[in-house]
Amino acid sequence: MNKTIAAISTGQAPGGIGVIRVSGPEAFSICERVFRPKLGRKLSEMSGYTAALGEVWSGTKLDDCVALVFRGPKSYTGEDVVELSCHGGLYVTRQVLAEVLKCGAAPAGPGEFTKRAFFNGKLDLAQAESVMEIISAQGRNSMLAAQAAGSGMLSKRIVNISERLEGLAAHLAAWSDFPEEVDLIDIGEVAISLGICKEELSQLLKGFDQGKIFREGLRTVITGRPNVGKSTLMNLLAGRERSIVTPYPGTTRDVVEELVSLAGVPLMLADTAGLRHTEDPVECIGVESARRCLKNAELVLAVFDWSNELMEEDFKLIESIRELPVIAIVNKCDLEQRIDLDFIVSNFRYYVTISASRNIGFDSLELAFNKFIGAENFDAGQAELFTERQRAAALAAKSAVEQGREAIKQGLTLDAVTVCIEDALNALFQLTGRRVSDEIIDQVFERFCVGK
Amino acid sequence: MNKTIAAISTGQAPGGIGVIRVSGPEAFSICERVFRPKLGRKLSEMSGYTAALGEVWSGTKLDDCVALVFRGPKSYTGEDVVELSCHGGLYVTRQVLAEVLKCGAAPAGPGEFTKRAFFNGKLDLAQAESVMEIISAQGRNSMLAAQAAGSGMLSKRIVNISERLEGLAAHLAAWSDFPEEVDLIDIGEVAISLGICKEELSQLLKGFDQGKIFREGLRTVITGRPNVGKSTLMNLLAGRERSIVTPYPGTTRDVVEELVSLAGVPLMLADTAGLRHTEDPVECIGVESARRCLKNAELVLAVFDWSNELMEEDFKLIESIRELPVIAIVNKCDLEQRIDLDFIVSNFRYYVTISASRNIGFDSLELAFNKFIGAENFDAGQAELFTERQRAAALAAKSAVEQGREAIKQGLTLDAVTVCIEDALNALFQLTGRRVSDEIIDQVFERFCVGK
Repeated sequence: MNKTIAAISTGQAPGGIGVIRVSGPEAFSICERVFRPKLGRKLSEMSGYTAALGEVWSGTKLDDCVALVFRGPKSYTGEDVVELSCHGGLYVTRQVLAEVLKCGAAPAGPGEFTKRAFFNGKLDLAQAESVMEIISAQGRNSMLAAQAAGSGMLSKRIVNISERLEGLAAHLAAWSDFPEEVDLIDIGEVAISLGICKEELSQLLKGFDQGKIFREGLRTVITGRPNVGKSTLMNLLAGRERSIVTPYPGTTRDVVEELVSLAGVPLMLADTAGLRHTEDPVECIGVESARRCLKNAELVLAVFDWSNELMEEDFKLIESIRELPVIAIVNKCDLEQRIDLDFIVSNFRYYVTISASRNIGFDSLELAFNKFIGAENFDAGQAELFTERQRAAALAAKSAVEQGREAIKQGLTLDAVTVCIEDALNALFQLTGRRVSDEIIDQVFERFCVGK
Repeated sequence: MNKTIAAISTGQAPGGIGVIRVSGPEAFSICERVFRPKLGRKLSEMSGYTAALGEVWSGTKLDDCVALVFRGPKSYTGEDVVELSCHGGLYVTRQVLAEVLKCGAAPAGPGEFTKRAFFNGKLDLAQAESVMEIISAQGRNSMLAAQAAGSGMLSKRIVNISERLEGLAAHLAAWSDFPEEVDLIDIGEVAISLGICKEELSQLLKGFDQGKIFREGLRTVITGRPNVGKSTLMNLLAGRERSIVTPYPGTTRDVVEELVSLAGVPLMLADTAGLRHTEDPVECIGVESARRCLKNAELVLAVFDWSNELMEEDFKLIESIRELPVIAIVNKCDLEQRIDLDFIVSNFRYYVTISASRNIGFDSLELAFNKFIGAENFDAGQAELFTERQRAAALAAKSAVEQGREAIKQGLTLDAVTVCIEDALNALFQLTGRRVSDEIIDQVFERFCVGK
């Protein structure tokens, strides 16, 4: 029998509500030892999806509490679940958890609630992974893609491919066992079918690379000489989607960078003021680190002033960044033009004219940015692969399919083709978790946070 | 009519569950625009304290969601409340809130849910303040005191005083209006009664000063020469109550100190390795900052080695900290004694012998610490004043009571005494919120986090 597990399921920061989730066969009896209902009704006698007001006690009263009851299999994990909702202080929430553990629950490991949901058939492995993606999503596109996967759309795309392969494998096996009773294998058709599978897997893998940008964002540097409007641009970017600016421990432990969003992609903006003063020997160190920051950037937003001629500092900057992944931003386009725009255009593949202070041209910036990341046709609602594990499985499936086509081309036996198809199926079943080792399952859920 | 308000009520960090709380007359109708129940049952048709599974939509599906319904007045605020419980990602939770706001809710200000609970008579002002204390509590004692206040025990202590004063005031007023029909005022008894009130207020104010240590903790430095067992002690302290070690943004923004707990008191431990090497000119800066850290410490834990004679470094250390608030900790008492204990005893008022590695003597350390903070008789379950506002009100009441006694002593008219009693009552009613200005109410709830 499964142990009953418990963990704090809300984020580890002070808030108005903190939730301790308890799941397993003893969820009710354990929580009844901790929770004193105001109206005296026992948790074990309550229906699923109902709640009771009460207090959590540990010798003395620890906190007021609302206990929400779910009865398996109609719960997140598929087991009996109680969610104890308390005042959201870090200390008090942890005290309530400690009391629940003292009464017999085991501390839940990372992702253990979702793991149980997987084992109880509430979701497949790819859907389980999408739950983690939803939690860590930092922008609209990555969230929508994760939601699509969570709704089973990714699994459906993979099932489409695997069903085709299964059909082929069944036909080949039947023909191999009873060659007289089965239709003749048209080897050309097998090759075509494998080609379709390969194409679909290629599409999935392409989506992974693009989705990665949406999920993980780009290390970005804003640069430019003084007074070209860097900070105005910065504010404009931050203001567009300020919701995700807050840094929290874990993502930005060492350096606190500003996290903004452009066209749904999270940009980690590093500050590099300092590229200009090179005379002062002391400041050289700062300039050196600024240069290093530029070198490591996945995107450089180089800002120039539309209303002024290019200066020596601009030329030096252009010289030092022309080989980098740059979008040139010509700012202050609401003023009279004095800049030599041709020089900018001839040096940078991506450029845009805007007025950050008047909020003119932001759409063009988003457009240029989408071109830059090659995402003009990216469909965020499409379910994509989004973990390295999924990518590796899809790659293995694609490679096995290619080997199968190669075997046909070289005129090998159909048995050899069957082996390749079986390999591809194995890889795809690993992806959805239909045929997967405990080791891989453990690896998947290790990435989760505790409490999910 | 009150606006319907909404906010994220769980802590602003990624987690398994994020809760958006919506409260007000339109809570159901707004949430119905956002939430699509799986079984089609409308939120407005559900009973209080029941939940429904569904999805939150904004054009596309945003997230899976459990909606928990409370019907006013049986809710936290006393109004209709819906709590939307989603996957706890920062981004997705904020998107759900954004959709709720788009559908007509106003963003809740700091403490606005609790403010409504106050206006709807669900709790008094001192209880409301205790909610904030529970959320920010970092140790057992401060949490218990806040819980006691939250249960109305603080209010009860104050009501006891104010009822006594009200009785006096009523008697004095009646006598002043109808001297023939009312019992003669025994001025000596009035003075005694005022004396009792003064004593009870003094007790309350004393509790505030002690409680402050429990709530806010002590800036603490562990010091001592190398190899006396500083880090073993550190681990012992941290291991005792590791639950509150995690730093979160806002409390420890600049310097990350270790937060541990000793005898229920939070200690912010700063690292000061470095007091020893003074030869190297570069390290001098580090030593200087270590000295400053020591100077600012509210508690210095000075560690010495029981199994070794005192060395030059020990003597230097003793010299530099003898005027500071020190507890001397003689470590490694499981080994043979070589230290000159008398020298330690003669230099430090508080000392204790322990073996950190063998976990011997921790109780003595707690005892010495309790003596140090003068909390040997502190009753954590007692409800104490815990905000400056409450303290100011209690001080004002005490001062008015003293003036009343003074008026009696000086033989002033009973009207003068009555005025003093009225002043004291006013101050006490401000404390519980029975008679309080909007300005003070606003000030109280400004301290709250959004979402509570």
